[in-house]
Amino acid sequence: MQVVEQIAAVREVIAPVQRAGRSVGFVPTMGALHRGHLDLMETARKECDFVVTSIFVNPSQFAPHEDLTKYPRPKERDLELCQSVGVDLAFYPTVDEMYPRGAVTSVIVDGLSTVLEGAIRPTHFRGVTTVVAKLFGIVTADRAYFGQKDYQQQLIIRTMTRDLNMPLEIRTCPTTRDIDGMALSSRNAYLSPSERTAGLCLSHALQRGAQMAADGVAPGVIAEAMQDDIEATPGVVLDYAVVADPWTLTDLTESQSQMVALVAARVGATRLIDNAIWGPSLY
Amino acid sequence: MQVVEQIAAVREVIAPVQRAGRSVGFVPTMGALHRGHLDLMETARKECDFVVTSIFVNPSQFAPHEDLTKYPRPKERDLELCQSVGVDLAFYPTVDEMYPRGAVTSVIVDGLSTVLEGAIRPTHFRGVTTVVAKLFGIVTADRAYFGQKDYQQQLIIRTMTRDLNMPLEIRTCPTTRDIDGMALSSRNAYLSPSERTAGLCLSHALQRGAQMAADGVAPGVIAEAMQDDIEATPGVVLDYAVVADPWTLTDLTESQSQMVALVAARVGATRLIDNAIWGPSLY
Repeated sequence: MQVVEQIAAVREVIAPVQRAGRSVGFVPTMGALHRGHLDLMETARKECDFVVTSIFVNPSQFAPHEDLTKYPRPKERDLELCQSVGVDLAFYPTVDEMYPRGAVTSVIVDGLSTVLEGAIRPTHFRGVTTVVAKLFGIVTADRAYFGQKDYQQQLIIRTMTRDLNMPLEIRTCPTTRDIDGMALSSRNAYLSPSERTAGLCLSHALQRGAQMAADGVAPGVIAEAMQDDIEATPGVVLDYAVVADPWTLTDLTESQSQMVALVAARVGATRLIDNAIWGPSLY
Repeated sequence: MQVVEQIAAVREVIAPVQRAGRSVGFVPTMGALHRGHLDLMETARKECDFVVTSIFVNPSQFAPHEDLTKYPRPKERDLELCQSVGVDLAFYPTVDEMYPRGAVTSVIVDGLSTVLEGAIRPTHFRGVTTVVAKLFGIVTADRAYFGQKDYQQQLIIRTMTRDLNMPLEIRTCPTTRDIDGMALSSRNAYLSPSERTAGLCLSHALQRGAQMAADGVAPGVIAEAMQDDIEATPGVVLDYAVVADPWTLTDLTESQSQMVALVAARVGATRLIDNAIWGPSLY
């Protein structure tokens, strides 16, 4: 596995790969890798000739009060994990390499970026779409891999890619969960044992919601039940629990064949999110 | 020359060209082609193995009161001109092909987009950067060609391309002028003979400014002289005449080795712009 820090070095490695007609798969990450990231890399490994990952904690998607400085950056461990699943090239840029002085361009996805996570984190998705557009320009992959865990993020990235006619395919892969159902997240590392137990209320609420949906209960009633479940958990503060249209993220009042349930809550100082798609597979 | 209307058709034509290792040059236009456009295409023809042009009157860069509906669209003549200079592929999309229902993504270049033309046309450059990003995603060229005539536009596109790490080179080519010095523009077709004569005050002001700059006159004094020249012309209303830094577009108070003079005025119902780079070549 090659590890490079410079944009020009990425291009130098990838150009001959693409000239040779080999397909390139790309897994952008913020590091602090867990099994979910590795699952994305293994899927890319199966589907593509050459696998690139990026490890970059992107400042522009953190608000000033958020956890940018304390976000974990276990560089050696992350690189070993990438190597273990057969990544060919790891791009590990500095902030200055990605955002040189004078950078003034942003990519904005209207509407979808201002609801749910975007309502709570107003500048977050502008930071995500801008850095992902940059990474797509640098890596020029044929396919990029995202986790369903960040449902709204992958939807916004799909929308950006479609609207700007970016020449690659977005692949969304199932959320990887611990044996108890907890969605894997780098932020789970912040949780104390008791907080981790409390945080299970998110996946439990989604499981209960799925059963209610299967029983034909109206989406608004399901959303309220999920909200009640989460709010009833000591130490947990609900941000939202909704049943929404999978493409527009607008709240549903009536059942439809494909629905997405999205939940978010704070457990102590840590924000957790999770989601579930109900109905036929979307991706 | 092939002519296609569908994005998928562009990709189908270009993919084998690039797989064969041939370079692709791209000249995006709004049609109503003149010698300036053809000069760009001829430069692309010299520098690239395969030349693509797009002809698309982009609604999102026109404000509601502007000339979108009356903008000239001489399709057959434009395609013949493209063929005459050796264009390989002409992309002639519909508005629906470029902006399907539900498109919500924009590319924004802060700062540069809000001064000069951007101050007078507040949504203009957002429309330009978004459509150019789309066209770059569709054509996946190695080089794209723009005229210096739209100095601020090419600077903003360069900035976008750099900031988003788009994998292509921007080439800026000299303004093509009529024998009397008038910068070629599709909008010149709107001018009556007397308006056309009046419109010469823009290039004349730039010529006088160039002489003053060569004589070491301060930029502020040159700007005032250009403003006076344009305002003194009957039938012409000045929008701006400035001497600016070529990278930031901020007004200069002291001379520097490279400067750009930018002028804009209305002649009757027609807006005209022009510019000149003073000092060593920028591009």
